[in-house]
Amino acid sequence: MTERVVLAYSGGLDTSVAIGWIAEETGAEVIAVAVDVGQGGEDLETVRKRALACGAVEAVVADARDEYAEQYCLPALQANALYMDRYPLVSALSRPLIVKHLTDAANEHGATAVAHGCTGKGNDQVRFEVGIGALAPDLKVMAPVRDFAWTREKAIAWAEDRSLPIDVSKKSPYSIDQNVWGRAVETGFLEDIWNAPVEDVYSYTADPSQPRDADELVITFDKGVPVAIDGETVTTLQAIEELNRRAGAQGVGRLDMVEDRLVGIKSREVYEAPGAMALITAHQELEDVTLERDAARFKRTVAQRWGELVYDGLWFSPLKNALDAFVADTQQHVTGEVRMTLHGGRAVVTGRRSQESLYDFHLATYDEGDTFDQGLAKGFVQLWGLPSKIAAKRDQRG
Amino acid sequence: MTERVVLAYSGGLDTSVAIGWIAEETGAEVIAVAVDVGQGGEDLETVRKRALACGAVEAVVADARDEYAEQYCLPALQANALYMDRYPLVSALSRPLIVKHLTDAANEHGATAVAHGCTGKGNDQVRFEVGIGALAPDLKVMAPVRDFAWTREKAIAWAEDRSLPIDVSKKSPYSIDQNVWGRAVETGFLEDIWNAPVEDVYSYTADPSQPRDADELVITFDKGVPVAIDGETVTTLQAIEELNRRAGAQGVGRLDMVEDRLVGIKSREVYEAPGAMALITAHQELEDVTLERDAARFKRTVAQRWGELVYDGLWFSPLKNALDAFVADTQQHVTGEVRMTLHGGRAVVTGRRSQESLYDFHLATYDEGDTFDQGLAKGFVQLWGLPSKIAAKRDQRG
Amino acid sequence: MTERVVLAYSGGLDTSVAIGWIAEETGAEVIAVAVDVGQGGEDLETVRKRALACGAVEAVVADARDEYAEQYCLPALQANALYMDRYPLVSALSRPLIVKHLTDAANEHGATAVAHGCTGKGNDQVRFEVGIGALAPDLKVMAPVRDFAWTREKAIAWAEDRSLPIDVSKKSPYSIDQNVWGRAVETGFLEDIWNAPVEDVYSYTADPSQPRDADELVITFDKGVPVAIDGETVTTLQAIEELNRRAGAQGVGRLDMVEDRLVGIKSREVYEAPGAMALITAHQELEDVTLERDAARFKRTVAQRWGELVYDGLWFSPLKNALDAFVADTQQHVTGEVRMTLHGGRAVVTGRRSQESLYDFHLATYDEGDTFDQGLAKGFVQLWGLPSKIAAKRDQRG
Amino acid sequence: MTERVVLAYSGGLDTSVAIGWIAEETGAEVIAVAVDVGQGGEDLETVRKRALACGAVEAVVADARDEYAEQYCLPALQANALYMDRYPLVSALSRPLIVKHLTDAANEHGATAVAHGCTGKGNDQVRFEVGIGALAPDLKVMAPVRDFAWTREKAIAWAEDRSLPIDVSKKSPYSIDQNVWGRAVETGFLEDIWNAPVEDVYSYTADPSQPRDADELVITFDKGVPVAIDGETVTTLQAIEELNRRAGAQGVGRLDMVEDRLVGIKSREVYEAPGAMALITAHQELEDVTLERDAARFKRTVAQRWGELVYDGLWFSPLKNALDAFVADTQQHVTGEVRMTLHGGRAVVTGRRSQESLYDFHLATYDEGDTFDQGLAKGFVQLWGLPSKIAAKRDQRG
Repeated sequence: MTERVVLAYSGGLDTSVAIGWIAEETGAEVIAVAVDVGQGGEDLETVRKRALACGAVEAVVADARDEYAEQYCLPALQANALYMDRYPLVSALSRPLIVKHLTDAANEHGATAVAHGCTGKGNDQVRFEVGIGALAPDLKVMAPVRDFAWTREKAIAWAEDRSLPIDVSKKSPYSIDQNVWGRAVETGFLEDIWNAPVEDVYSYTADPSQPRDADELVITFDKGVPVAIDGETVTTLQAIEELNRRAGAQGVGRLDMVEDRLVGIKSREVYEAPGAMALITAHQELEDVTLERDAARFKRTVAQRWGELVYDGLWFSPLKNALDAFVADTQQHVTGEVRMTLHGGRAVVTGRRSQESLYDFHLATYDEGDTFDQGLAKGFVQLWGLPSKIAAKRDQRG
Repeated sequence: MTERVVLAYSGGLDTSVAIGWIAEETGAEVIAVAVDVGQGGEDLETVRKRALACGAVEAVVADARDEYAEQYCLPALQANALYMDRYPLVSALSRPLIVKHLTDAANEHGATAVAHGCTGKGNDQVRFEVGIGALAPDLKVMAPVRDFAWTREKAIAWAEDRSLPIDVSKKSPYSIDQNVWGRAVETGFLEDIWNAPVEDVYSYTADPSQPRDADELVITFDKGVPVAIDGETVTTLQAIEELNRRAGAQGVGRLDMVEDRLVGIKSREVYEAPGAMALITAHQELEDVTLERDAARFKRTVAQRWGELVYDGLWFSPLKNALDAFVADTQQHVTGEVRMTLHGGRAVVTGRRSQESLYDFHLATYDEGDTFDQGLAKGFVQLWGLPSKIAAKRDQRG
Repeated sequence: MTERVVLAYSGGLDTSVAIGWIAEETGAEVIAVAVDVGQGGEDLETVRKRALACGAVEAVVADARDEYAEQYCLPALQANALYMDRYPLVSALSRPLIVKHLTDAANEHGATAVAHGCTGKGNDQVRFEVGIGALAPDLKVMAPVRDFAWTREKAIAWAEDRSLPIDVSKKSPYSIDQNVWGRAVETGFLEDIWNAPVEDVYSYTADPSQPRDADELVITFDKGVPVAIDGETVTTLQAIEELNRRAGAQGVGRLDMVEDRLVGIKSREVYEAPGAMALITAHQELEDVTLERDAARFKRTVAQRWGELVYDGLWFSPLKNALDAFVADTQQHVTGEVRMTLHGGRAVVTGRRSQESLYDFHLATYDEGDTFDQGLAKGFVQLWGLPSKIAAKRDQRG
Repeated sequence: MTERVVLAYSGGLDTSVAIGWIAEETGAEVIAVAVDVGQGGEDLETVRKRALACGAVEAVVADARDEYAEQYCLPALQANALYMDRYPLVSALSRPLIVKHLTDAANEHGATAVAHGCTGKGNDQVRFEVGIGALAPDLKVMAPVRDFAWTREKAIAWAEDRSLPIDVSKKSPYSIDQNVWGRAVETGFLEDIWNAPVEDVYSYTADPSQPRDADELVITFDKGVPVAIDGETVTTLQAIEELNRRAGAQGVGRLDMVEDRLVGIKSREVYEAPGAMALITAHQELEDVTLERDAARFKRTVAQRWGELVYDGLWFSPLKNALDAFVADTQQHVTGEVRMTLHGGRAVVTGRRSQESLYDFHLATYDEGDTFDQGLAKGFVQLWGLPSKIAAKRDQRG
């Protein structure tokens, strides 16, 4: 029986060419799989037809936007996951979802290998291959761009040779990855890290420096899930989309950073993630109100590790699962409302209220109604400082 | 011989009254100590005279602004210390410096006790008393406001009774603590955490929502120390002051948060720290370029613990010292320039350059000049994912 | 209506006297609660009668040994919890269970306060009071020994005055706390930390230096729970008891340490915990075989924090719950058998086998059957070391 | 000019053969480098002559035992470094030292490459190559055993072909690595992890189960350095050697474990490290007495990471350096004496005394002389538990 290979298909030049190349090179039948994670662009049917036109024996397309929002973005939101305290893991979150669809398709169509179009110096090859290894450890992996050193020029030549139905004329200067959680941009002139990004780089966000009126909204969370905006019920996907729109219109969520890649190098990355950043800001704030201090402190350590794991391609790993269990436990009381002003590139919380609040007005106030017993403080302070004091006495006699 | 008490003196109503009250209550001689940490307001000589007029036998004033910037703010900057990922420890940093001046004065003037005016539900009592315990474990501590339940009303009555030279008429609705690293504001209406701050609350920062031209600057660091702004050499103090001015003028550095106090309650706090936030942003960015990945990852854990310790009053503690040694070691190569745009409440880095950079264009580029050997990636990815893969195989057979 | 106070009752002098003292001092009715956590000694009925004879209006006794083993010892075992890497939290685990029974009794009998007999310099006062605060935040707490400075002499005088049915003659030189998870001993001569413990101090363990035959056994775990010993099914309680017997007979589990108490001082403690130490050793070993590397590494951080929290009286805290969720998630595959030799104070694992093992003979062997692809190693090593290498190049040019 | 290659030379079959093989294969001149790290066996001069006889153009031998003890073992001791809480990093510590001698020799003799004889599934290849990359990033690395799949059989055939002066007859069933810090053993029958080690496996330690008299000694530390044993001044090397002898004679320091290798697999390892384990036990104990609580708690996190880094081949890494700075800072007061009994496989501390002790008899005692103010406890306990209590109230109303 002819071998079958499942290919992660984007509809673009590289993966369109890969269909035929894999077929020729290996004699296998190629099944193209394209997943909608909210990246916009062409509709899935167009993509599907192109895959078939390029020689795929099957072309599977899936609208996975809700699945992505609920199963991938939401855990990141609940962890307040920001790699290097900044990057909301835009591409890192979508890869495991795509891997899941690839391995499902491989299973369904009896494929023995999965192919992806990643290069050998990025993180995505890791996310794809480690993910495939975890979900379907017996599948082979092909990485033609990396392992056979494909270049754009070779791809164009191949496409023209075979008259593939791909428009190879419009060469964008940008290498872009986008989905509903955000958008990543790389491009040659940004590889000089002294160069500033130009306005042209951005698509999800308006220029924050332009004057415009502020936008104010209220986000409602129920156990760590955003369930309403301005009182109107939303799905997680809708919450992200609406905040992409509204926070994006205010220039919120642009990031320009030098990032530590798993493969050992530093790279310059520009991101925009208006919805993600606004939601994380609101969610973190509600945690500040509803999470107990020690839990909140340790959760920061968990969040850092969670972000590193997901960035490093270990979504489907035992540690990730156990950290998820920790995070899930902390979300039980993250319920309430956060009021936020979006303006001039800033997403600023201006109010919070919650039935689950641990903020106690009567303990906090310096005015009438104070129930805090200040008589307890002296003993607390003395014993709190006792280890330092004993050490200080020792040091002074030393 | 008459006992002597050193009092942390601010020049305000509470501590002015405390001078006489302590003297009457205990029969001790009171030595008032006021320290300039860049809080602005009255000049030190005026403060000194008032202390004497209120009955102090000695009044010691010290301009500690450079000491504060170099010995207290700089370590916080090098740690990128933000309590709860947000608060640059404005008040928490100044307290140990004040403690040092208090215990020095106690030593010099033969005092046997130190007095402070903190209440029993804040963090500052801890910072004062634990600090005193560490620097001078044999000194007694007096906290009349806490232990004798002084109120503003009682203080005014006392001051009027004794005709103390204090203007008790202007009652600010705000409780304010400020120094060169930032400014903290508490006030009754913010104790309802659904209420937004009003513009009137702020003093170090202009309204970020007002249109104005952006300000661009270049900050130069040498081994983690800010040494020049726009090419002009600055001391650490000058760096903070200039950035307070310029970042403040752009509305940078406002914070509105619900915070976990050491004494076990959550409180609402509003801060402004334009210089601190701009400097930390620039410094963090330069670390992203010059610190190796694993060092940078662990440093975040160190920074979190450092911030918690300092917030919790443990500046003079063995762990704080050991964390400082860690941080100091990481700063050896944090040298270079960061270009930053200040505008509309945002401090955004737009470029970085450094002789000590670990960003390697030739390893990072996707264009000509690429020296990264992609052939190494396959083996790396396979072994990186091997533990997850073995676990996945096990789980599937389970 | 007369107030009611629930008293944590041990049957000993201090708490027997406390019954009457509380009644006289406060006019309240005292309900004595005694909980069997495997401490041995008198039977519960005798204890119950003594409480009534000393003036309690009710005396509640509960055999909580299985509850203790399953709900308190087992989580500690699954966390491999050792405070300061050594102490298996013997007393720290029993206190929250006792608190639960106290607050249940308070609830049932309409009490408004709970009393305990702890001193003011130990950890147990914290565990009692913080636990009560968490389970029944509205109950008052009474700590007569601490707050009214009761001494043994005062208690004896009181008991004799009122002819309480307590034998006050036999004064043990040891202060002992014991339960099925272990035994803690303090005594005057050990307060000199240069003094070695004498044989007389121990009760759960035989002298390890005496020659005797070794004992070998096989412990079976199912998802982190010890379910069989030498093939015979056991409850968790039975597992601990049998290992107390067999490991104790071999002198396993003695600890002599200087410990950091929560109240800020260091204290000398001697423990014996033969069953706990043998079980933790076996469980840790099975985790080494069945837990994936990254999960195992992070679990050590979790275990340390878990141990600190429980030691510090925070059993009923949000962070403890979230850490439990992490630990529970890791136990899914901790299934298999561990063979162990108990001898001369040592509990040494000599074999492990598991259907859930991640040890793969074919990947590990250097002999025939090797399936590890060494060709992958070069790329792995190169990229693994790349960040250090880039940093080294930078440092050398610096 | 002829290329030169520095070879890590052990004197054994594999690396003796490698001399000639590298020369033939590459045309390079081979410089053999052998380093004495206390592994015992043949004297260095014999090893040197064999290298020359096998075709090396130069043979460099170095007695690095003191350097190893002071620069490599001592930092591990001060960190109390135990990978997976058990393994004292025996092989992991010696590799960076050997790397240093290799790169020094390469530098001195103008070599352009370094060769080692490690396989592709162990940790040592990583430690060699990452170390070389850090110390001499421009040197090439050759790993003939790994990259050209050398086997013992091929090596013997080669040696016989060329009549190399190597005795190939005695095939040990064990693969052994040893140095003064300990000894590692692997062998076929231990690859079945249910098999127990046999007595024959061990060399540094006597059978702990044999009856013999106990040995008692006192170790003196000065700022974390072992400086005397039983009052007699020792170098660090002498301390390790004497404890290898005395603790080894009592069967102390045997380890049998399943270990997580960096290359992603679990492996069975048997170690013996009598000196290392006895010294770490004593040093940890002295830290328990002289380190302040928070510092001690965080140091455990540092120690774990330190152990992972060193195990994972990152000795020469920026993070390792920064962790060293942390550890060094903590050792200032680790001064004093520890009395220890060595017997029956156990190294048990029975006493400690130190001018730098933080144990304060007067604070700890329950007898006369107690200076601890129990009146402080109530306030401490109440505020310590306040966050949990507030959370509990919330949870109960929820």
